[in-house]
Amino acid sequence: MANSARFEPDREHADRLVTPGQLGEVLRAVRQQAPLVHCLTNVVAAHWTANVLMAVGAAPAMVDNRHEAGGFAATADAVLVNLGTPYDETSTSMRIAAVAGRAADRPWVLDPVAAGGLPWRTDLAAELLGHSPTVVRGNASEILGLVGGGGGHGVDATHRPEAVLPSARGLASEHQTVVAISGVVDHITDGRRLVRVHNGHPWLTRVTGAGCSLGALIAAFTASGKDPLLAATAATAAFTVAAESAAASTRGPGSFAVALLDELHGLTAEQVVERVRLS
Amino acid sequence: MANSARFEPDREHADRLVTPGQLGEVLRAVRQQAPLVHCLTNVVAAHWTANVLMAVGAAPAMVDNRHEAGGFAATADAVLVNLGTPYDETSTSMRIAAVAGRAADRPWVLDPVAAGGLPWRTDLAAELLGHSPTVVRGNASEILGLVGGGGGHGVDATHRPEAVLPSARGLASEHQTVVAISGVVDHITDGRRLVRVHNGHPWLTRVTGAGCSLGALIAAFTASGKDPLLAATAATAAFTVAAESAAASTRGPGSFAVALLDELHGLTAEQVVERVRLS
Amino acid sequence: MANSARFEPDREHADRLVTPGQLGEVLRAVRQQAPLVHCLTNVVAAHWTANVLMAVGAAPAMVDNRHEAGGFAATADAVLVNLGTPYDETSTSMRIAAVAGRAADRPWVLDPVAAGGLPWRTDLAAELLGHSPTVVRGNASEILGLVGGGGGHGVDATHRPEAVLPSARGLASEHQTVVAISGVVDHITDGRRLVRVHNGHPWLTRVTGAGCSLGALIAAFTASGKDPLLAATAATAAFTVAAESAAASTRGPGSFAVALLDELHGLTAEQVVERVRLS
Repeated sequence: MANSARFEPDREHADRLVTPGQLGEVLRAVRQQAPLVHCLTNVVAAHWTANVLMAVGAAPAMVDNRHEAGGFAATADAVLVNLGTPYDETSTSMRIAAVAGRAADRPWVLDPVAAGGLPWRTDLAAELLGHSPTVVRGNASEILGLVGGGGGHGVDATHRPEAVLPSARGLASEHQTVVAISGVVDHITDGRRLVRVHNGHPWLTRVTGAGCSLGALIAAFTASGKDPLLAATAATAAFTVAAESAAASTRGPGSFAVALLDELHGLTAEQVVERVRLS
Repeated sequence: MANSARFEPDREHADRLVTPGQLGEVLRAVRQQAPLVHCLTNVVAAHWTANVLMAVGAAPAMVDNRHEAGGFAATADAVLVNLGTPYDETSTSMRIAAVAGRAADRPWVLDPVAAGGLPWRTDLAAELLGHSPTVVRGNASEILGLVGGGGGHGVDATHRPEAVLPSARGLASEHQTVVAISGVVDHITDGRRLVRVHNGHPWLTRVTGAGCSLGALIAAFTASGKDPLLAATAATAAFTVAAESAAASTRGPGSFAVALLDELHGLTAEQVVERVRLS
Repeated sequence: MANSARFEPDREHADRLVTPGQLGEVLRAVRQQAPLVHCLTNVVAAHWTANVLMAVGAAPAMVDNRHEAGGFAATADAVLVNLGTPYDETSTSMRIAAVAGRAADRPWVLDPVAAGGLPWRTDLAAELLGHSPTVVRGNASEILGLVGGGGGHGVDATHRPEAVLPSARGLASEHQTVVAISGVVDHITDGRRLVRVHNGHPWLTRVTGAGCSLGALIAAFTASGKDPLLAATAATAAFTVAAESAAASTRGPGSFAVALLDELHGLTAEQVVERVRLS
């Protein structure tokens, strides 16, 4: 999610898969729909995540008690399951929501925070993966951890997206899902196709929950009913294009995070089309 | 909580119930008292809520484990129970706090987030209502949900305050409470009397926990010992007048939320008196 | 943590214990190391705390479920245990993490929020104290509460650091720990030595979790392996020097908190050396 100085995007190739115009259309659809996104996420990023969803025009609802998670997942427009701070009660809720959301044919996103580095949640992530998430979003270490390849220490990415691409492709193919790997260059693949997004800014790694909120945006964008590869790419493009604008007018991670909400709020489809750098 | 373009307040009528001068006096009393507000609230809005309380000069304390909730409620100046993210443990704590706060004659506010839309918490809200809250604050859908009239989907208001006013008046009369309905125009009633506050800004609906923090402010203002209708109106006035100032100097929901804290911190009784629009 | 108008630091005395140059060196070491800080903290301040750690260059990881807390504490660079919102599950995790961290010789910080004022957590704090924290950080009322001397009401300090200094010295000596007392002037002692830091700003008392995040910074700085008295002083100096800069450019607690993250991000060792006021 940050600029690559050596960037020479292969626009022609990327445009065969996903065009900038299509990304703008998805953003327009999200704004129009104002999807209700059921979030089962961590206590650290919950407020930030809800603010990001609201800024882009979606309607977040954090419902992660075991009594209501299933019923709500079945009626929401999309579901996010993020493993940042799972507890006994909320991990039960996550299982219930994934099953119920899937049964009701709701798109849902799995964000396997720190998978590979922490054993209990790695098992939980693997179990949830069995309920056919529409998109899996994580950093490179988490994607590697999810396929049993080790993973990182804590929540930081110690691998680069390109290094784990074979694992990500395998994961996507085996589970018929889309895997979105966040990093300096975001990689999004359904196993066969690959789209890379070259926008973003290093300060995104200094804002707590930036990745978590991208997972939530992806959930909101899958509610559009579009091809999940396109939806995940559109969410990533919107988030990272807004981040570039935010960084241009601020001087550190504090003011950057505030401006990112303003930029997401004001972001137009035209700006995404014009500024996104795909390959 | 936002401007109505067609606003023609009936100041004379409103002034018979609650005068701008009285609202300013309540703000002064809150600043003087620095009330300790015991918050049992949701994990999403907890940080924001505490910041709002601190900005206005109150002292928040989030104590929602089952071991301490009762003892603390009995000694705090006011109690807030917000159902945004109830869990097994914290819902038990809420019951304990409501009973203990009431037994110790503490004013307390019930914020029945998503009542009507989610069955488990709707039952919890109905049970808590039996413990005589001083004020009930919610959006129109939640107030309707609390009286068994359906309610909305998720946390968004799908009804307008004026549409649920008969339900709100009935609720207030039956339970001898004050009902504060948040919306484009805030409606506050004790069943007999009705005050409307016409300040605010649409960006309040794009800041996660804005309504939750208003519920906390109402709790802080009830600690003044004033008539609860007056206290709830004064809190609403302070919050929405500050929101108007914040919106005037910012460009989106991110910077607006930051400025709202600054404005609440600097807000004077005189500004409330001068700017509030009642009917 | 705020300016004292009558400040006349005894630099010569303080410089015998801890020199400004040493404080700058610790900041440099933290930036170099980017320590992984395992945080078991409260739901209110978790996001803010993580942002503060990230701003200074540390890597926060909030892992407070009972299944992973022990294993993670044993491998993190430092551990923070903050009692702001303990629950049944997370208080168990805190016990596990303190024992595991200690067994693996990890530095760890105990932040006994509201100790003395609330009985259940006071017992928990006393038990955790038995696991030899490297540093104990709290306000004066909490330190007094921890030694059985009463404590305050809620989370506000009703005592001044200098008034509880004998208790703090006794606590530090008995448990071979460092006690950092936050206040208008921060006092840091290992029982024998005492360092006072005279930087800061009153708005720190209007930002939710400011003290909590200072505890986390102290944990990050102890990971440097330096003398804990020096590490705690360096963290306090970095935080309060940055706060002074932040206050100089902002107009209220909202914009101040945002600027504090920017200032921590940009803070140099040279600025700490030049601006810290010790005695």
